[in-house]
Amino acid sequence: VDLSHAVPPQDVRHAALFLAGCVPYFPPEALHVIVVDPGVGTDRAALYIDVGGHQLLCPDNGCWSLLADVLGAHPVVRRLDNPRYCRKPVSATFHGRDIFAPAAAHLTLGVSPEELGPEVGQWVRLPAAPLVTTAHGWEGEIIHVDSFGNLISNVPGPEAAGRGGTVWLGSKAVRQWVRTYGEAEPGTPVALVSSSGFLEVAVVNGNAARTLAAGVGTPVIVAHSSPPPAYEV
Amino acid sequence: VDLSHAVPPQDVRHAALFLAGCVPYFPPEALHVIVVDPGVGTDRAALYIDVGGHQLLCPDNGCWSLLADVLGAHPVVRRLDNPRYCRKPVSATFHGRDIFAPAAAHLTLGVSPEELGPEVGQWVRLPAAPLVTTAHGWEGEIIHVDSFGNLISNVPGPEAAGRGGTVWLGSKAVRQWVRTYGEAEPGTPVALVSSSGFLEVAVVNGNAARTLAAGVGTPVIVAHSSPPPAYEV
Amino acid sequence: VDLSHAVPPQDVRHAALFLAGCVPYFPPEALHVIVVDPGVGTDRAALYIDVGGHQLLCPDNGCWSLLADVLGAHPVVRRLDNPRYCRKPVSATFHGRDIFAPAAAHLTLGVSPEELGPEVGQWVRLPAAPLVTTAHGWEGEIIHVDSFGNLISNVPGPEAAGRGGTVWLGSKAVRQWVRTYGEAEPGTPVALVSSSGFLEVAVVNGNAARTLAAGVGTPVIVAHSSPPPAYEV
Repeated sequence: VDLSHAVPPQDVRHAALFLAGCVPYFPPEALHVIVVDPGVGTDRAALYIDVGGHQLLCPDNGCWSLLADVLGAHPVVRRLDNPRYCRKPVSATFHGRDIFAPAAAHLTLGVSPEELGPEVGQWVRLPAAPLVTTAHGWEGEIIHVDSFGNLISNVPGPEAAGRGGTVWLGSKAVRQWVRTYGEAEPGTPVALVSSSGFLEVAVVNGNAARTLAAGVGTPVIVAHSSPPPAYEV
Repeated sequence: VDLSHAVPPQDVRHAALFLAGCVPYFPPEALHVIVVDPGVGTDRAALYIDVGGHQLLCPDNGCWSLLADVLGAHPVVRRLDNPRYCRKPVSATFHGRDIFAPAAAHLTLGVSPEELGPEVGQWVRLPAAPLVTTAHGWEGEIIHVDSFGNLISNVPGPEAAGRGGTVWLGSKAVRQWVRTYGEAEPGTPVALVSSSGFLEVAVVNGNAARTLAAGVGTPVIVAHSSPPPAYEV
Repeated sequence: VDLSHAVPPQDVRHAALFLAGCVPYFPPEALHVIVVDPGVGTDRAALYIDVGGHQLLCPDNGCWSLLADVLGAHPVVRRLDNPRYCRKPVSATFHGRDIFAPAAAHLTLGVSPEELGPEVGQWVRLPAAPLVTTAHGWEGEIIHVDSFGNLISNVPGPEAAGRGGTVWLGSKAVRQWVRTYGEAEPGTPVALVSSSGFLEVAVVNGNAARTLAAGVGTPVIVAHSSPPPAYEV
């Protein structure tokens, strides 16, 4: 099953959100091979991970740490360093082909995870995007743009929607809150709770990233009662 | 099997043509989950459909009515309102995950369609694009642009090709008729019968949508003997 | 399994490199259906190919000849001209649906390749991109741009990397050689051995095709000791 070939090149953060959103729905016998790997061929490790009953094969770049947080489970992590289970020769630029996929294939043929390499106790974690609780609400940022151009922030969705107010995306204000896209007119910028539970900004039947010129990293300020000081004129 | 992730966002008409073009080739045990769903979370229904031996799970937005026309079969339609077969909680913005896929999974595990919800007698139909037979031929419109940029109209292909003449795309005239792309020089705009049986305009080894600045909704006039009055100078 | 829907329209050369890169990793019972087919509906043949234990169904346009070179195996080639194993009617514009996929389906159901049509002794071969060994190194060209924008040439990778020097892409010089992307700073143009064994030019964490304004057909000159005469000033 090809879950996605649409993760932007080298975008480990995008991969992390993607994995957190889909791996939990797979059965434990699934093997997830993740090849978002800007550090391929350097000394970054190649890992086998068993977390919350889910198995992953991926580079040690933090792509799975958000998934681990979502699952709230203790991971068992192994370093894939048994050359017996690699394609030979191992290239310096394509470990999806030479290390991760062969390891997955051997696992499906009955090789045990122990044989792939030793357990390790340290791995890279992706730092969470900054989120601050303020007197007015929250200061966070856009952490994901989905294929519709919807902007997903790191602000907790139900809490923000429960109090309403203004969502500032940089200097642009979004003031209409909805439960779902179809509740406002096409073209309207709206704030809502995303399907992953975060505060989302969308443009009904449109592309919010394009219309609002926002993207990953755009600051998001939620001000329940009034504009935050910085934007008062 | 991922049939397509390339339907443009919210484009129910594109989905309808896509389904009419591929579902008929699948065996009856296939379950088709369609998540082109601009009305997600509103009061639009979620449906299970059995039509001509094909089973679909989709929003009630007309995405399957062209398929039903092609199959010429009487559908059995059920409303998916048994919460037992949904993911919990059901979000307001992602019924692919929360309603359609879980219903399909339960069906594959032996749940009968009757258990998903009651049969209904009404559903949304997508209106057909306007098509008029004129003294000279037809007046229709482009209803689809494929991934090559080929322009598919709603004008009956074999009938139009049988008489030839001029195809007007807005103010642009296409006068060369071919049986297939390779019969004209690269770069030539040509008229032909599409693989779905409609009048198609293509640019050989090129992209007709871009070259002719046309797209879904562009008027198409077929004039067998002479330019239509509106274009006579 | 959908190996790719991302081969650019009508790009037989891209398909050829794609097939050479992935078919060798499949087991012999796999059937590969290739529908990169600018000549569909003309008198170009439809083929069944058995080469090195791999089976393909494809148009006779040379898309598989590089694969045959890589495998170094003698092919058995048949012409698919038994109408019994086609969808009816056979359209002039979509043989993926009407000839290749039905032939593959019949093969999986036990039809033997002999029944599909007679063996033939001639087929189209894709000419290799020109490669010249010079006093300084090589003169070749870019033969592929991957989805990251990396530029793959037809110059032998290990040999070129073994001697180093300057890689000229048109009038642009790349002088930094690395073993893998992560060995240079983001944004740096680098030369390295691609995972397929050719000389590759990449921009670390960037898109070399865009940054260096290069693409398929861009001349590549490798000059081990000094700039080639044409670029001396």
